[in-house]
Amino acid sequence: MPAPDDHTAAAGPSPRLAFLGPAGTFTEQAARSLAPKLAPKLATGQQASGDQKPSVALEPCSTVTVALDLVRSGEVAGAVVPIENSVEGSVPVTLDELATGDPLVIAAEATVPIQFSLIARPGTTLEAITLVGTHPHAAAQTRKWVASNLPQARVVHTNSTAAAGAGIADGTATWDAAITSPLAADHYQLQTLAQGIEDNASAETRFVLVTRPGAPASPTGADKTSLVAFIRTDHPGLLLELLEEFALRGVNLSRIESRPTGAGLGRYCFSIDCEGHIAEARVGEALMGLHRTCDDVRFLGSYPRADGVRTEVEKGTGDGDFREAESWLASLRNGD
Amino acid sequence: MPAPDDHTAAAGPSPRLAFLGPAGTFTEQAARSLAPKLAPKLATGQQASGDQKPSVALEPCSTVTVALDLVRSGEVAGAVVPIENSVEGSVPVTLDELATGDPLVIAAEATVPIQFSLIARPGTTLEAITLVGTHPHAAAQTRKWVASNLPQARVVHTNSTAAAGAGIADGTATWDAAITSPLAADHYQLQTLAQGIEDNASAETRFVLVTRPGAPASPTGADKTSLVAFIRTDHPGLLLELLEEFALRGVNLSRIESRPTGAGLGRYCFSIDCEGHIAEARVGEALMGLHRTCDDVRFLGSYPRADGVRTEVEKGTGDGDFREAESWLASLRNGD
Amino acid sequence: MPAPDDHTAAAGPSPRLAFLGPAGTFTEQAARSLAPKLAPKLATGQQASGDQKPSVALEPCSTVTVALDLVRSGEVAGAVVPIENSVEGSVPVTLDELATGDPLVIAAEATVPIQFSLIARPGTTLEAITLVGTHPHAAAQTRKWVASNLPQARVVHTNSTAAAGAGIADGTATWDAAITSPLAADHYQLQTLAQGIEDNASAETRFVLVTRPGAPASPTGADKTSLVAFIRTDHPGLLLELLEEFALRGVNLSRIESRPTGAGLGRYCFSIDCEGHIAEARVGEALMGLHRTCDDVRFLGSYPRADGVRTEVEKGTGDGDFREAESWLASLRNGD
Amino acid sequence: MPAPDDHTAAAGPSPRLAFLGPAGTFTEQAARSLAPKLAPKLATGQQASGDQKPSVALEPCSTVTVALDLVRSGEVAGAVVPIENSVEGSVPVTLDELATGDPLVIAAEATVPIQFSLIARPGTTLEAITLVGTHPHAAAQTRKWVASNLPQARVVHTNSTAAAGAGIADGTATWDAAITSPLAADHYQLQTLAQGIEDNASAETRFVLVTRPGAPASPTGADKTSLVAFIRTDHPGLLLELLEEFALRGVNLSRIESRPTGAGLGRYCFSIDCEGHIAEARVGEALMGLHRTCDDVRFLGSYPRADGVRTEVEKGTGDGDFREAESWLASLRNGD
Repeated sequence: MPAPDDHTAAAGPSPRLAFLGPAGTFTEQAARSLAPKLAPKLATGQQASGDQKPSVALEPCSTVTVALDLVRSGEVAGAVVPIENSVEGSVPVTLDELATGDPLVIAAEATVPIQFSLIARPGTTLEAITLVGTHPHAAAQTRKWVASNLPQARVVHTNSTAAAGAGIADGTATWDAAITSPLAADHYQLQTLAQGIEDNASAETRFVLVTRPGAPASPTGADKTSLVAFIRTDHPGLLLELLEEFALRGVNLSRIESRPTGAGLGRYCFSIDCEGHIAEARVGEALMGLHRTCDDVRFLGSYPRADGVRTEVEKGTGDGDFREAESWLASLRNGD
Repeated sequence: MPAPDDHTAAAGPSPRLAFLGPAGTFTEQAARSLAPKLAPKLATGQQASGDQKPSVALEPCSTVTVALDLVRSGEVAGAVVPIENSVEGSVPVTLDELATGDPLVIAAEATVPIQFSLIARPGTTLEAITLVGTHPHAAAQTRKWVASNLPQARVVHTNSTAAAGAGIADGTATWDAAITSPLAADHYQLQTLAQGIEDNASAETRFVLVTRPGAPASPTGADKTSLVAFIRTDHPGLLLELLEEFALRGVNLSRIESRPTGAGLGRYCFSIDCEGHIAEARVGEALMGLHRTCDDVRFLGSYPRADGVRTEVEKGTGDGDFREAESWLASLRNGD
Repeated sequence: MPAPDDHTAAAGPSPRLAFLGPAGTFTEQAARSLAPKLAPKLATGQQASGDQKPSVALEPCSTVTVALDLVRSGEVAGAVVPIENSVEGSVPVTLDELATGDPLVIAAEATVPIQFSLIARPGTTLEAITLVGTHPHAAAQTRKWVASNLPQARVVHTNSTAAAGAGIADGTATWDAAITSPLAADHYQLQTLAQGIEDNASAETRFVLVTRPGAPASPTGADKTSLVAFIRTDHPGLLLELLEEFALRGVNLSRIESRPTGAGLGRYCFSIDCEGHIAEARVGEALMGLHRTCDDVRFLGSYPRADGVRTEVEKGTGDGDFREAESWLASLRNGD
Repeated sequence: MPAPDDHTAAAGPSPRLAFLGPAGTFTEQAARSLAPKLAPKLATGQQASGDQKPSVALEPCSTVTVALDLVRSGEVAGAVVPIENSVEGSVPVTLDELATGDPLVIAAEATVPIQFSLIARPGTTLEAITLVGTHPHAAAQTRKWVASNLPQARVVHTNSTAAAGAGIADGTATWDAAITSPLAADHYQLQTLAQGIEDNASAETRFVLVTRPGAPASPTGADKTSLVAFIRTDHPGLLLELLEEFALRGVNLSRIESRPTGAGLGRYCFSIDCEGHIAEARVGEALMGLHRTCDDVRFLGSYPRADGVRTEVEKGTGDGDFREAESWLASLRNGD
């Protein structure tokens, strides 16, 4: 009997998908929405098994690291983890796990709206609340509701929305109520006084489906490419040059973040999302430019954008333009 | 009796300095080293009180937010909080607190080397350890020690060094020992099996002394300027233009980080440290350039660099060069 | 009796204006149209002499150099010389004279449409013409007329339109007719077979009124600024940096040309026209940037554009934006 | 008898090389030095004819245009024409001929030092000279000699050195003597009072050997590539972007000049020389970038530099770096 291939080890009767647990969170919701993206990936190289699409077994993990290590070891076919939150920022452990260790790639993304609840110790009434704890961005996104419904209350900022709930639970908080995610009430055994109190729907969390490296899915015209660039030295203009590698080929960036490399203060790598797909010429040439000029570039996948917005291709930067330029150059070199 | 001046409200017989507690941590160590920087600041506008320098009362706070709110309210003269860690990255709550809310500025910085200990349940022997949990950057910085002293052990990555210790304490860890800061053993009531196990001294945490806004200290020639830039729109080239505002005036950046503005995924502001002092012409002109082209720019202070490295001033970008260019322009405009 | 002021030495009863002769050319036409621009300049500092505007005496000169030296020596108040021709290119002697020697400035500009005639030896008929000589750009601009009216003829290119006429006159030409300026027929004693044969009116010559340095005329909102930049060394990126000094402040260039500095092949200075007036903040700051980073910058005047097209001022680059940024910076530096 | 092949029409028993006449000038000297470069070109595809290298017949032409048209028509195998002069600037007719009409390429270049003579009417003595006419750059390069040998004389500037001689010959000059090329004395039937009067040897003229298009000679490591770029519109940043196409790939420019396109004032193309050979990856990619973003790009040849200075290849821009980046990209695209 042959040894299981690395890429299909997790397949078999029912492929497994890890996610950051516990069960019942928004991550599970994201994992369910991303699971179908895993199946076609698994199907490649297999016989199509009749008309049934394979069901995916979800497996909660205690940490992002545990989930991604299951992918690395081949025990699961993929993992769904949060990468960015428009309220509290990027998820450093996800960025760092993708930037270091055995290579992984992003195969798909999904966004989930962030909802806010007002939670407090059981028995608390809205009228009794004079201080509300929450993260500053959450405060900004519930300002109208608080002004209308808690006119007597003042808001104090906490490190995170979870910290606001935890402080009430462990008795260290000076605030009477916390604005948190809907799940925090259960977690801290507090009472939900109001839910859906966000002023608008702009807040959201972005989740990614992470797999072992393989050929990216075909371009859709609405794709995103993720990578990490380790800049050569501390020479001042290098970030500028890195950005120009994209700008000159008409490739827009949708996210750029510095992360410490662990080699000391002032030593960063840049975690980048750009518009377009590695199969497209302008993205490919920009990546080659980075590869030539950076210490290291780690490709983290090309995948469809969750928002489905198609990339606007600037004049002169389409695949046809690149092909035409290559023919032109070849004919000049040959003296045709 | 006159109303207390905003800047001296916290002074009195003994100015107070908040810090992120609890007592006995590296932050207290940083606070003690930065306290003297607070005193001269307070002294401005006061009579020199004989030959005694004012002693500073240190006040531990439960969160960065609590510490900074004490500064905002005038209850303390300043606060010392961590801003960046070469192992686990920037401290988001500090960046966000400085970027939003009532303005604050950085008056000084200090760095403290990061030391690592190996901790475990009491009674654990080195020989018995087969799995060690820690953050990836900490793992990288103790690799040699682990290879020499725990040759039989495998390292698993955790979200933070604290999480590695907490997992052992609460019994959820699969690892037998954790690599953490020296203080974690006490905190989690675990035993320190070895200390000072870092392979070299490059890992460090940067702390800042934060005060209410006021005139920055005079330039020393080895200064840093911090700011937050809110970029106008999602127009692709704007980060590039922002960087060019610095590059064109020969101002190097030592740190740049994107942070969510809270207005939705893909909406960022940039937290930036550059070399030089706002009193210097090249830094001033770059800041004016940002002010003209960004939605908003928040100045976060000019202060001496902890490492004392003097800024290299490129040809044509010194204060004398700017003054000379202004005279030249004035004479052309006047037709002299 | 007081010594004559430098700027009014040439004035007296009737200010004199030199121009590149001979009389009866397009330069004289340009000189007549620019003469009124000289008078107000002379009038500054003088008593307005009733309701009469001073008449200007025109003085033809044999060369651009002779005309400009008369300005330098104070014998005339100004000179009108050609600087650029959309058919045959810039006028090197004018660029070089402005770039070197005693400083001069451009006070005004005017453009004159270029017209073409077909000239030949007396007695030549259109039907007999098999070869027509002219400069390639003139050929391009009379292509339709030639195709319709000289279907049997082939066009050969000459170094200039004048050379095409001269060749017929001195018998060295292989062509039967020449396409030249209308004046060439007289000059070479040839016959005009057809005139106004240009296909459209886009061809024109630009003339400048040159004076001794003095305060530029006030901004009109539709101005141009001319200068020469001597780049510091042969360091590759310097032209790019020079262009960025303009681009970053939203200042567009309308002309840029390299000219040899006379210090050897590969040593150039750049003759530049940009949109805007030196009195405007964005132009002033760009010029100061060049002054700081170039070996030398020679200001050649700010003056109204001949085409009257108003400068589009990009967001953030208006004078008000600069003033506002200066106040902001001042208040940060003072700690207000 | 077979029809002559386009490329070998000029070959036969003795290939012909046109040059800008008359005989006995520096151009002939340049043509003789460049003739051997023509022979190997002709030899390609021919049988090596024993140990004799083919002799080349030189053919003087009255104008640059005539010389280049002989190349275009196949009557000669190549032409040697001046392209740039460190004293009087570029040779517009050569730039314009190469930029328009049937395509031609530069196959080689040579530089000839410029020497200056002092010429005057027969019988003139040095002591009698009070005014000397010459071009400003020639004046700058003979300043020391004039100061030592004509202490009583003043220098007046003329449009060209030839104009200074012509003025004496035709009696219109106000100057007594002219500083010109050594050949002008004969041409204007004047007397040479002194020769070799240049202060140093930096002044030179650059000549190019022009042929019909064909495969460029192999790279030597000390090559130059010439081209003309027609920029898309009058959009302000386009020249900047054009320069960045070179800068980003580490390709230095050694010459850039704007020339009118003939489509009206303010419409330019850019005549450019860059370091490197079209066969090199960084040059090829930069050219493709221009081809994609410009209205038109005309390749004018890759050929060895006359000065033999080898191109410094920046880290990350060598052919090996490009090949390595291509393999890397291919493996990412394939998911290897």
